[in-house]
Amino acid sequence: MRRINPPQIAGPFATYAHGVEFSGPVRWLFGAGQTGVDGDGTTPTDIVGQSELVWSNIRAVLADADMTIEDIVQLNMLLVDRADHDGAKTVRDTALGDHRPASTLMYISGLARPEWLIEIDYIAARELPG
Amino acid sequence: MRRINPPQIAGPFATYAHGVEFSGPVRWLFGAGQTGVDGDGTTPTDIVGQSELVWSNIRAVLADADMTIEDIVQLNMLLVDRADHDGAKTVRDTALGDHRPASTLMYISGLARPEWLIEIDYIAARELPG
Amino acid sequence: MRRINPPQIAGPFATYAHGVEFSGPVRWLFGAGQTGVDGDGTTPTDIVGQSELVWSNIRAVLADADMTIEDIVQLNMLLVDRADHDGAKTVRDTALGDHRPASTLMYISGLARPEWLIEIDYIAARELPG
Repeated sequence: MRRINPPQIAGPFATYAHGVEFSGPVRWLFGAGQTGVDGDGTTPTDIVGQSELVWSNIRAVLADADMTIEDIVQLNMLLVDRADHDGAKTVRDTALGDHRPASTLMYISGLARPEWLIEIDYIAARELPG
Repeated sequence: MRRINPPQIAGPFATYAHGVEFSGPVRWLFGAGQTGVDGDGTTPTDIVGQSELVWSNIRAVLADADMTIEDIVQLNMLLVDRADHDGAKTVRDTALGDHRPASTLMYISGLARPEWLIEIDYIAARELPG
Repeated sequence: MRRINPPQIAGPFATYAHGVEFSGPVRWLFGAGQTGVDGDGTTPTDIVGQSELVWSNIRAVLADADMTIEDIVQLNMLLVDRADHDGAKTVRDTALGDHRPASTLMYISGLARPEWLIEIDYIAARELPG
């Protein structure tokens, strides 16, 4: 996989790449939007707590497909409140480490449950052994 | 295709899977967002009527590519009004039957036409005969 | 790649196809949402100026992957204000020319920076030479 960040474009402004290119036989994982719900169905009220659960849930789905965060090629981060940006960003940056998927951030009117502050959906691809 | 629902994650809370994994040579179908417009360009005013058209339109696109609902791997359901959730869910659940794509639900400010209450976009993949 | 526009579905209502189907070995490009920021990090205040930068940025990312606008298979156009539709559409129609990706238009509450009026994310696929 190759990150694409043409020098004539400003940014990236956060932990993403302007493009992610790859080819060849891959396994695909299409991920449902993950939210801040723990294994017992409980949702913390704060953005940091919810964001940590989003990412641990994503890691669990990826692990079940023998993938890791490094295999995410594109993600959408959905937030409801601009005030939650910094908390979501801090947790995201830690979760991504050096990885840089293509990504988009949207503020929307609401998520499936009124108490949810963040949701992240994603696509991952892992090269098949040749 | 394999549904991924790790036991340590709560849910799925609706008719979706936390992840959908597959590999191998596939045909792809990328679907434009479908809305509640019938073949004559008419849009019913209620969410159930619009949702039924969304799904029959999706089925028509899939059929043209020799695919079915079962080939959808990821979808986004966009709603404008939280009050429309139950109507949209009832129609969706019937349309999906036992199928469980990865999916995300968003409430947004509006769709291309002010009278549209729902839009669903999707990605489908069908294994090529080996 | 084959455009899918079943005769029993109304539309397409704009410069898109109801579906885009393809198979075979392809190179993939997953694109981060592009916004109206020029190479110096400056954002014009009007929708036409921002839209033109969105598309020139997309072209730059595609070019870096040896692709063009014609390789886009699906895109999401995110707008904040319904009043910006016509400006965004004019620029988009020129940028797409005869190309018709699957696409979805959403009005959302906001983008990452308050001054951004439009963002477009996309997926592109280019057949590998056989």
